[in-house]
Amino acid sequence: MAIFERFTRLKSASRFLQYTTALCPAHSWAPTRGPLLRPAGWIQHRCVHGERSEASSAAPPRRPFSQVTPADLDFFRQLLPGRAITDPDVLESSNVDWLKSVKGNSEVLLRPKTTDEVSRILSYCNQRNLAVSPQGGNTGLVGGSVPVFDEIILSTALMNQILTFDSISGILTCQAGCVLESLSQYLEEQDFIMPLDLGAKGSCHIGGNVSTNAGGLRLLRYGSLRGTVLGLEVVLADGRVLNCLATLRKDNTGYDLKQLFIGSEGTLGVITAVSILCPRKPKSVNVAFLGMLQYFLTFQACRGMLGEILSAFEFLDASCMNLLEKHLKLTNPITESPFYIVIETAGSNAAHDEEKLHNFLEKVMTSSLVTDGTVATEEAKIKALWSMRERITEALRHDGYTYKYDISLSVEKIYDLVTHMRERLGDRAQNVVGYGHIGDGNLHLNITSPSKDPALLAAIEPYVYEWTSQYQGSISAEHGLGLKKRNYIYYSKTPEAVTLMGNIKAMLDPKGILNPYKTLPDDIC
Amino acid sequence: MAIFERFTRLKSASRFLQYTTALCPAHSWAPTRGPLLRPAGWIQHRCVHGERSEASSAAPPRRPFSQVTPADLDFFRQLLPGRAITDPDVLESSNVDWLKSVKGNSEVLLRPKTTDEVSRILSYCNQRNLAVSPQGGNTGLVGGSVPVFDEIILSTALMNQILTFDSISGILTCQAGCVLESLSQYLEEQDFIMPLDLGAKGSCHIGGNVSTNAGGLRLLRYGSLRGTVLGLEVVLADGRVLNCLATLRKDNTGYDLKQLFIGSEGTLGVITAVSILCPRKPKSVNVAFLGMLQYFLTFQACRGMLGEILSAFEFLDASCMNLLEKHLKLTNPITESPFYIVIETAGSNAAHDEEKLHNFLEKVMTSSLVTDGTVATEEAKIKALWSMRERITEALRHDGYTYKYDISLSVEKIYDLVTHMRERLGDRAQNVVGYGHIGDGNLHLNITSPSKDPALLAAIEPYVYEWTSQYQGSISAEHGLGLKKRNYIYYSKTPEAVTLMGNIKAMLDPKGILNPYKTLPDDIC
Repeated sequence: MAIFERFTRLKSASRFLQYTTALCPAHSWAPTRGPLLRPAGWIQHRCVHGERSEASSAAPPRRPFSQVTPADLDFFRQLLPGRAITDPDVLESSNVDWLKSVKGNSEVLLRPKTTDEVSRILSYCNQRNLAVSPQGGNTGLVGGSVPVFDEIILSTALMNQILTFDSISGILTCQAGCVLESLSQYLEEQDFIMPLDLGAKGSCHIGGNVSTNAGGLRLLRYGSLRGTVLGLEVVLADGRVLNCLATLRKDNTGYDLKQLFIGSEGTLGVITAVSILCPRKPKSVNVAFLGMLQYFLTFQACRGMLGEILSAFEFLDASCMNLLEKHLKLTNPITESPFYIVIETAGSNAAHDEEKLHNFLEKVMTSSLVTDGTVATEEAKIKALWSMRERITEALRHDGYTYKYDISLSVEKIYDLVTHMRERLGDRAQNVVGYGHIGDGNLHLNITSPSKDPALLAAIEPYVYEWTSQYQGSISAEHGLGLKKRNYIYYSKTPEAVTLMGNIKAMLDPKGILNPYKTLPDDIC
Repeated sequence: MAIFERFTRLKSASRFLQYTTALCPAHSWAPTRGPLLRPAGWIQHRCVHGERSEASSAAPPRRPFSQVTPADLDFFRQLLPGRAITDPDVLESSNVDWLKSVKGNSEVLLRPKTTDEVSRILSYCNQRNLAVSPQGGNTGLVGGSVPVFDEIILSTALMNQILTFDSISGILTCQAGCVLESLSQYLEEQDFIMPLDLGAKGSCHIGGNVSTNAGGLRLLRYGSLRGTVLGLEVVLADGRVLNCLATLRKDNTGYDLKQLFIGSEGTLGVITAVSILCPRKPKSVNVAFLGMLQYFLTFQACRGMLGEILSAFEFLDASCMNLLEKHLKLTNPITESPFYIVIETAGSNAAHDEEKLHNFLEKVMTSSLVTDGTVATEEAKIKALWSMRERITEALRHDGYTYKYDISLSVEKIYDLVTHMRERLGDRAQNVVGYGHIGDGNLHLNITSPSKDPALLAAIEPYVYEWTSQYQGSISAEHGLGLKKRNYIYYSKTPEAVTLMGNIKAMLDPKGILNPYKTLPDDIC
C-alpha cells in the first residue's frame, strides 16, 4: 500500500480558516448595488419561465409595522428582566450580519430563555403589529438573520439547554440556541456525532441550522435535516406553541408539520427546540487527495467501491489550485491536474476501510482515471489535506473582488457552468473557478476581478441564473434566500409554487411580522 | 467462523407470504363495530391530553358533494376514451380495500395516463363539487385508498412510465403509477436499488408509497422518504399543476412544498410524478438469527460494531415463536429464548462484512448477550431465516381473532407495552405478542382471542393508545390514518397541530373534494 505512505506535509488549517469555509456562496450583490437597505438598484431579469420580472437584492420599503414605544419596552423588561437589551453597543453586533453586508437599525434585542417567554413575546408583538427578526448564531450568508429596518431582534442565544439524549436510539433533544459545536462535543463524549457539520459550527445555533436547512460536509453520508430532524417545537407568529417535538423515527399520524419550518428561514415560526437523530461516531477516518482528467467516472467508481464508508466527495479545479499556490503559498501535494478531489471515508473498522480505499485507488490509478494521489489517516495530515479544499475562499479573497454563486446541478452538468462562464467572460474576468460539494451536486462558482466591475456583473447575471434554471438547477443549494436572494426565487421555483408559499405565509403569519423582507419575493409579500 | 456454518434449513417464504408482511398494523376495528360505512359504533375515549373526545373508525355521514350525472360521464369519456370505467365488475375490486374491510360504492373509475389529464379531471370535479378518491396499488391498510361512499376513483395505474434515471447520482424520476417492484427490477439491472422495500411491492405504486410515507424494511439504513424523495409533481384540488419535480440533492430556494404531500394520504393533492434518490445495490448481504434474554444491549453493540453495514434489526418475542411452531410447524433454528432478533447486513465487500458480523457475534455470545444464533449468506437460506419474521402474521391468523396495533415508541420503552398488556389482560387474552422493526422503534402489538370479544377490546382500547401517548409514542408508526384511524389522531398530535392540519387542508382543498373522510378527524373537517 505504497500510496498510503506517500504524503506531503501541509500546514494545518487554522480554526479561522475552517470557519471561512462557509463563506463560499453568492452574497456579493449588496456591495455592488447602491446604498444598502434602500429600495435602489432594481435590475431587469429575463426569467426563463418566459416572463420578465424585476428582481433585486436591495431591501424594499419598510412595511407599516408599529414602532417600539416606551410602553412596549416596559412590557419586554418586565417579561425578561435584564434580557431586554437596548444598549446600542450590545445591539451593534446583532444588527449586522457576519459578512457585514446587511445592517439593520433595531433598537431592541430580546433574549428569552424559555419557550413560554418566546410565546409571550410573539403574542404581544403580533397584537401590537411589531415586526420580529429571529436570530440564532447570526452566521447566515444571505442577510436572513439580521433586521432590515427596526425589527425587534429575538435571539435564541440563552436557549441553550440539552434536554435529553438517548444513547440507544441516538436521538438528541435540545433547545434551539445550542451551538452546533457544543452539541458535537457533548455527543462525541458519548460516542456519537451530529449528522451535520459546518464551517460556522463554533457560532451557529441548531435552531438556525434547522431554520435554514443547513447542508454542510456530512450531507452526502447522513442526508439532509429533512430526514434527520425528528421533531420540532415552534412558536407561531401569534404566540401559539406548536409542539411537534417527537423523538420517533416513524410517525405517520397526519401531516408532517415540522417540515414547514425546516428551511423557511424564520418566516413561518420561531423554532424553540429540536430533536435530531445522531449517527455513531466513526471509528476510522481516511482522506485521499487525488488528481484527475475528469471526475464523472471517478465518482461512479468511488460510490461503487467505497459504498457505505464514503463520507465526502469534494472537488476543486486547477484554477483553484493555482490560487492556493499563488496567494497562500500552499504546495500542491500531487502533480498538476485539471481536477482535484478530496475523498473522505468514515467507518467502523480501520483495516477494512483502508483496504477498500486501497482497492479503489489501485483501480482508478490503473485505469488512468486518477493521475496522481496521496492519502492521510492521521488527524493532523487529514486536516492538512482538507485545507486544500477549505482554504480556497481565503485564496479567492487575495485574488481581488469576487462574484460568488452557490449552485445545485446534476453531477453531469455541474462543471459545464464553469466552462460556459469562462468562455462567455473571456478576458473580462481575472479568474473563473469552480469547487464544492460535488458528491451532492453543489458547485461554488467564483469569478474574480481586480475590483468591482458593473460590466462584468452584467455579463454574469442573469446569465448564470438562466443557465442554472435551464438545466433544472437551484440558484441556492444550501444557504437559502434570505434578504439577498428573495427576488431570484423564480429562477428555481415555478410561479404556482411561489404563490403557494405566499398562501402558507399568509395562513401562518397573516400580519407578516416574522422575518419580513426575507425568503418570499417582493411581488408576493 | 463456526457460527457461519451452523444453519438449520427452513422452508422458504412464498411470494404470498412476503406480501402478507404488510398486514401487521392495526386495522381490526371495522369488523368489530356495527355495519361498515355507516356512522355507527361511536366509542367514548378518554384523551390523555386531559379532554374527553369521541372517536370512531366508522365512517361519518356522506358530505354534500354532487353526484355523478350522465353529463359528467360524457365529459370523462371524452377526456379519457376507453379509460372512464363504469362496468360494475371492473369497479368491484377498486371499491374495496386489500383487507376487504372497507367498501365504497363508486360508480366511476378514471384511468388517466398524463398529468394534464389528471389536471383536467380535478379542475372539472372541483367545479362540479364531485369528491375524488385517489388510488395507487390499493394496498393500504387503514382504508385510505378506497372510496367511502360514491367518490370518483382516480387511479394512477396507467401512469407507469419511468421518465429518467441518472446512474451517476442515482436519481430516478418516474410517473406515480410505477409499481415498486418494477422500479426495483429496473434499478437492479443498473446496479442500484430503491431506498424502500415493502411486502406489498408487487402491487403498490410509488405515488401511493410517497402519499402514505411508506416505511418498510430499508428505513433503518436509508432513512424515510422525507429524505430520499427529492421532487414531486402534484395536481392540486382545483387542477393546478404544482411542479416541484427537482432532481437535486440540495435546494434551499424557499419552502419545501413537496413535504406537504408526502404522507398526507392524497388529501392535499394527487401526486403524478416522483423523483427519488436511489442507493447502489449492495454487493454482499448476510442475515443472522439470534436468541437473547433482552435486546437493548444487543442493539447498542450491533450499532457500534456493524455500523455502516447494518441494514435491518427486526425482532420477535417467544410468544411469536410459539405460534410459528404451533400453527405453521416451523422449527426454531436455535434454542428457546425470550427474544429473537433478525439482523441483516448489506455492504460493498463480502469478506469485510462477514468479518464484522463474526466479530459482533463473537462479542455478544462471549458476553452472554446472545444465547444462541445462526447465520446465512446464501439467498435461499437468507429467505428462510427472514420467514421467521415475515410469517408471524400468518401464524397469528391461525391463532384466532387478532387485535392489531402499529405503535412507534422509543427503543427502551418498546416492549414494556407488550408486558403491560399481558399483565392487564391476563387470561382474557389468548396470546399477547410483540414483533416489529425494533431498529426503527416500531412495535407490532397483536392480541389474539378465540373469537371477536367486545369485552377484551374494551380492555385494550383506549388503554393501548393512552399508554402510547403517555410515552410520547405514535399510534400509527407507518401505515397512516386513512379512514380507520383518523379520529385517534389526538393521541399522537396536539390540538394545535390538528387545527393547523385543518387550516392547510382548507387552504389547498377548500371544497374538501380530495379523499374526504380520511386522515383528518371528524371534528376538523
